[in-house]
Amino acid sequence: MRPIKWDQGKLLLLDQRALPETFDYFVCESSSKVYEAIKNMVVRGAPAIGVAAAYGLVLASKEAVSKPLANRKQYLIKRAEFLKSARPTAINLSWSVNLLLDLIKTLEVERFTPELEKAALRLDSEDYESNVKMGEMGSLLFEEGVQVLTHCNAGALATTGYGTALGVIRSGYKKDLISKVYATETRPWFQGSRLTVTELKEEHIEATLITDSAAGFLMAQSKIDWVIVGADRVALNGDVANKIGTYALAILAKYHSTKFMVVAPTSTLDISAKTGHDIPIEYRDPEEITKYNGEWLARPQTSALNPVFDVTPASLVNALVTEKGVILEPTEKKICSLLAK
Amino acid sequence: MRPIKWDQGKLLLLDQRALPETFDYFVCESSSKVYEAIKNMVVRGAPAIGVAAAYGLVLASKEAVSKPLANRKQYLIKRAEFLKSARPTAINLSWSVNLLLDLIKTLEVERFTPELEKAALRLDSEDYESNVKMGEMGSLLFEEGVQVLTHCNAGALATTGYGTALGVIRSGYKKDLISKVYATETRPWFQGSRLTVTELKEEHIEATLITDSAAGFLMAQSKIDWVIVGADRVALNGDVANKIGTYALAILAKYHSTKFMVVAPTSTLDISAKTGHDIPIEYRDPEEITKYNGEWLARPQTSALNPVFDVTPASLVNALVTEKGVILEPTEKKICSLLAK
Repeated sequence: MRPIKWDQGKLLLLDQRALPETFDYFVCESSSKVYEAIKNMVVRGAPAIGVAAAYGLVLASKEAVSKPLANRKQYLIKRAEFLKSARPTAINLSWSVNLLLDLIKTLEVERFTPELEKAALRLDSEDYESNVKMGEMGSLLFEEGVQVLTHCNAGALATTGYGTALGVIRSGYKKDLISKVYATETRPWFQGSRLTVTELKEEHIEATLITDSAAGFLMAQSKIDWVIVGADRVALNGDVANKIGTYALAILAKYHSTKFMVVAPTSTLDISAKTGHDIPIEYRDPEEITKYNGEWLARPQTSALNPVFDVTPASLVNALVTEKGVILEPTEKKICSLLAK
Repeated sequence: MRPIKWDQGKLLLLDQRALPETFDYFVCESSSKVYEAIKNMVVRGAPAIGVAAAYGLVLASKEAVSKPLANRKQYLIKRAEFLKSARPTAINLSWSVNLLLDLIKTLEVERFTPELEKAALRLDSEDYESNVKMGEMGSLLFEEGVQVLTHCNAGALATTGYGTALGVIRSGYKKDLISKVYATETRPWFQGSRLTVTELKEEHIEATLITDSAAGFLMAQSKIDWVIVGADRVALNGDVANKIGTYALAILAKYHSTKFMVVAPTSTLDISAKTGHDIPIEYRDPEEITKYNGEWLARPQTSALNPVFDVTPASLVNALVTEKGVILEPTEKKICSLLAK
């Protein structure tokens, strides 16, 4: 499953709002369209939106051609800010856009489009390679026959094609180390039901879907050895922002002596965030809770609060898997040495 | 909101499957219809299904009239077993039916219907009175300005009209002790979205709906002082079976030093269950997770596991509120002395 395709100057995004029923690509021929796709979750998952935004800036550089030469860089800087504002929590978005902005500073105006395109393609393929590496390293932590639980979708659909948490599950499954995979449905967006089990089925991995609330029930029966999740942003001290409910799973895991693994490329690390307190949490439309598919679940005008991420303190994380290596019991010190590698 | 009405020999059940859109009463003129209503969750909530089943036995006693005199008691015993088999976890169901069965043993065959009807009406009104009492006693535990969270629906709609957990919230609200009410949506059946916030709104109590996964996020921000839930069965040692996710909330509460209150009449106590291990857990149709309103949330044939209750150990319960009194930090010994009152 490839959520992102760059096709002769057009960005094609697998429309994740329509899955699993319909496999449709949403075509972006402008940076505005990319912004819209990120904001409305046509594309989601921290690594995927990072790469999508990079292509968005390539499209912006084409738009810039209609501007006077002297204004083009300024236009790109503005579009970069606009793209970064599409969603607040996933740091990969600003990471990739900033990387391209830095590149722009070194370029002649005429070289903007070809060089940005090259850079975006490189981010795209590097993300894939990182995932494969993380899959390999993360799965080394498994003993034979482990039962794993994942939350949300940190798979091929959230990245450029292999997955972070699901990459580890894929690798572990191939090595015959995993005896059972559970996936939470993940309210309110149902990433688990709509994406994760679908994606795993394509790989012939049979996952069992549960409600988010049933994770504790399974842990109490010793049915989960590892909880494995991705991340939208990791602070310098190892605190992890990820899909709402991750924090609860980490506390449940601690209570049951279940291990807790976070799988995230170093592009997800935000060294400017000392701790999780410095990570902005996105609140989305309460109608994601009060409505489903246009139909009311609660009465109209019901008050609802819809934070879509939470922060898991590093103290609850047993392993942080990055493409540069695995950190057990992450701390600021360990993260700094990893980044210095 | 009255979920149960006994109207000239007919049982009218507010059809909770259609709420909050439609207020329709489901008419039961036979014990089979009552069985169907309990099994399919036309009526739900432990106290409510207990009372509904009692009326079901009254209807059975009318059906018995067409049988030879000598077979009537046997017919009633069979119908009683049938009614009890509708759902396995809520003990109130067998409690109320057994109570009426005991009564039958003392009666002349001709007196079955009028005496059972009297007994069912008594259970009905006693449940209401118990709720009001529990509401009063439970709310005495609040300091001023507390913020509370409830899970599932343990309200008027789950009882004969006032509520267990929501009864305490109602009473606390009237006394101006509660500054904020949160309600989990409660997957997979959305009792929170469909019933709890609706019911509270009728009482002019504004509750804020959250996903089940967001409870930990609020606790981390010190936004919950008390978690307040009902129960489907309480074991002799104080372990509590309640809606799936209750266990996770109790662990989260412990982690955050949030208080955890269970509100349940003594009809919910099952002294034959020494601990929670002796409580049968109901698994319902996986399509409650994979479908919503006839539409697939996941692909057809997705494997899903749907336990709808879990067990919270007594060690995580700070207060058990019954109509006979409040037990702090429940133990078998404290429960036995309460029952001896």
